[in-house]
Amino acid sequence: MPVSAENIFANLEQVRRQGPLVHNITNYVVMNLTANALLAVGASPVMSHAREEVEDMVNIASALVINIGTLSEPWVASMTKAARQAKNKGIPIIYDPVGAGATPYRTRTIRELIQAVPPSIARGNASEIMASAGGHAKTKGVDSATATETALDSARRISEQYDCVVCVSGETDYIIDKTNMAMIKNGHAMMPKITGLGCTASALCGAFAAVNPDYFAATTAAMAVMGIAGEIAAEKTKGPASMQVEFLDTLFNMTGSEIEKRLKIS
Amino acid sequence: MPVSAENIFANLEQVRRQGPLVHNITNYVVMNLTANALLAVGASPVMSHAREEVEDMVNIASALVINIGTLSEPWVASMTKAARQAKNKGIPIIYDPVGAGATPYRTRTIRELIQAVPPSIARGNASEIMASAGGHAKTKGVDSATATETALDSARRISEQYDCVVCVSGETDYIIDKTNMAMIKNGHAMMPKITGLGCTASALCGAFAAVNPDYFAATTAAMAVMGIAGEIAAEKTKGPASMQVEFLDTLFNMTGSEIEKRLKIS
Amino acid sequence: MPVSAENIFANLEQVRRQGPLVHNITNYVVMNLTANALLAVGASPVMSHAREEVEDMVNIASALVINIGTLSEPWVASMTKAARQAKNKGIPIIYDPVGAGATPYRTRTIRELIQAVPPSIARGNASEIMASAGGHAKTKGVDSATATETALDSARRISEQYDCVVCVSGETDYIIDKTNMAMIKNGHAMMPKITGLGCTASALCGAFAAVNPDYFAATTAAMAVMGIAGEIAAEKTKGPASMQVEFLDTLFNMTGSEIEKRLKIS
Repeated sequence: MPVSAENIFANLEQVRRQGPLVHNITNYVVMNLTANALLAVGASPVMSHAREEVEDMVNIASALVINIGTLSEPWVASMTKAARQAKNKGIPIIYDPVGAGATPYRTRTIRELIQAVPPSIARGNASEIMASAGGHAKTKGVDSATATETALDSARRISEQYDCVVCVSGETDYIIDKTNMAMIKNGHAMMPKITGLGCTASALCGAFAAVNPDYFAATTAAMAVMGIAGEIAAEKTKGPASMQVEFLDTLFNMTGSEIEKRLKIS
Repeated sequence: MPVSAENIFANLEQVRRQGPLVHNITNYVVMNLTANALLAVGASPVMSHAREEVEDMVNIASALVINIGTLSEPWVASMTKAARQAKNKGIPIIYDPVGAGATPYRTRTIRELIQAVPPSIARGNASEIMASAGGHAKTKGVDSATATETALDSARRISEQYDCVVCVSGETDYIIDKTNMAMIKNGHAMMPKITGLGCTASALCGAFAAVNPDYFAATTAAMAVMGIAGEIAAEKTKGPASMQVEFLDTLFNMTGSEIEKRLKIS
Repeated sequence: MPVSAENIFANLEQVRRQGPLVHNITNYVVMNLTANALLAVGASPVMSHAREEVEDMVNIASALVINIGTLSEPWVASMTKAARQAKNKGIPIIYDPVGAGATPYRTRTIRELIQAVPPSIARGNASEIMASAGGHAKTKGVDSATATETALDSARRISEQYDCVVCVSGETDYIIDKTNMAMIKNGHAMMPKITGLGCTASALCGAFAAVNPDYFAATTAAMAVMGIAGEIAAEKTKGPASMQVEFLDTLFNMTGSEIEKRLKIS
């Protein structure tokens, strides 16, 4: 049974009511957008990467989102430390393997991280998910050069081996766990023209999972809300920058009837 | 005698005329917004954190703004170094204790910094000011979980012990020094939905104090201009992202009559 | 023969068709804007600074853009490493000496970098180009305090010594190499009120040079497109923040007839 529009909106409303603290260790490019997107859905963002404090920050957070978009050694050490603590504490851990497959360093880092501390949810484009699973992926820096469907086997393998939810995002978003698969066909072709919307999706997965112990449903809800907000924003604007502004406003104002009307899930 | 609308606008006009160089050692999340806000009020922003150059940068700057939002050891070392040099040179030093109280590392860092080099102005939310004063504060990451008024004793204590201006910002902004207190009731409930507006306020305190040796008046003016710009922007927009755009445009275009008409000070 | 509107648009269209991967090692303040501007012209941006991966990233990139806006030692080491690899590989290397002249550290860093690995293109304001050439420049942090024309001798000296294109940007943009000079008088007085538009120009030089082996023409084309987009955006907006949004949308939608109609080159 696919996740319903009603359940998706209920998850969004739960984020708005509880305002979960989402701890992000993410890349420099998207930090501002990520924080604003988390605020727009009603969550409370915090960015923190110092080894001196990541465990303490995890201790007050309701989700941990790790994104390797501009990684370096001190950050990787803090990511591992934070992830271990999040696992101990039992809060959802989201990995975004930005650029996995583009360089051996990124691929190695995400694979070591997954092995050290399996995530609750991993979200990436097709190349990134394939590289994370140890496959050979064609990438173009941080953009995928592979059809989304090609990565489904890799997604299933990660999902089964580490007992986690995997989302391969693209024109269709696939959300997979050991027993379920959902496909979301919302979204708009302009979305990849805005830097960091993939990272935003991962952060929203964190917010939705922070208040919903069904991580498959939470990931599905977050991806649906992303796609629907993208569609609405694209219809109202004429370029990527005005669309980004409209996207955040739309997240902030999203109603249950917008989700009901637009959701394309199967 | 509270600071008048006329004096506030005069301080803003002074920033526009002199274009003071404001040196920021701040967090990754807000750097872009901080720079744009400083440009919008007529100041000249520079971001610099390398130990090899922070003292040289202070030497050409008219104010130093230190913000611990995404701190780590090398940055803390540079903050201290820069602050010492700013004190030697006699330019205003502004501290923004982002997330103080959220982790022991942040609380310790800001307290050691204040003790090593007392600021000219400290601005934070209630939790952050209480933690900076050594009190026990309820925080939610970088958001306050405490009523603004609860922090007034802490603000007074810091102000008296270190002979500085302290601003506790919230629905009402309180500006305190050894002999004065001002309350500003401008602003809008949507402002906390935009990441980094608190950090922006601290940066504007730096710009206003760079051209006004009366730091109490400069802090009051900066906070009034922030609040008024927030009100105007909120009235014209329907979500946090369009509001941020409008907020910066409003700062850029702010007139004396807007300040006169809207200022709520006591 | 100056570069024609037709050639400029052809270069832009080439970027849109090929979508070159542009590797940026740049400053924290502008990373988001830089990425969005590269996407808006049709390029594919990647930000990467870790010594563990910069060479691998260069190996899949079509241009390398190095910007010293918020430098520190580990980043400088990676910049040099990446530049050497880009030189080996033969892709265009663009340097943006942000704040050269403001501190000895910045001046020394850019001069050592130029000597170690001469760029294909260097773009800066007058102060920055003068400081990069070893001259004495009056700066105000990252803003120039020198008339653009004053820097032409320095630009020629760098151009001849290192056989590269140098662009001194200002109210008029001067593009110089050993045998050519072009002047572009497009642009708008509001552009310096938006943080990072200079950095954006350097990134666009990277995108245009990635698909055009004539680096003089590519730099000229990138600067013309910047200036024209700035003019169009300024005419439609009333402040720097809405102008930035409009600027990116304009880049995305720019037509050959807009370039034809507005280009002011000599």
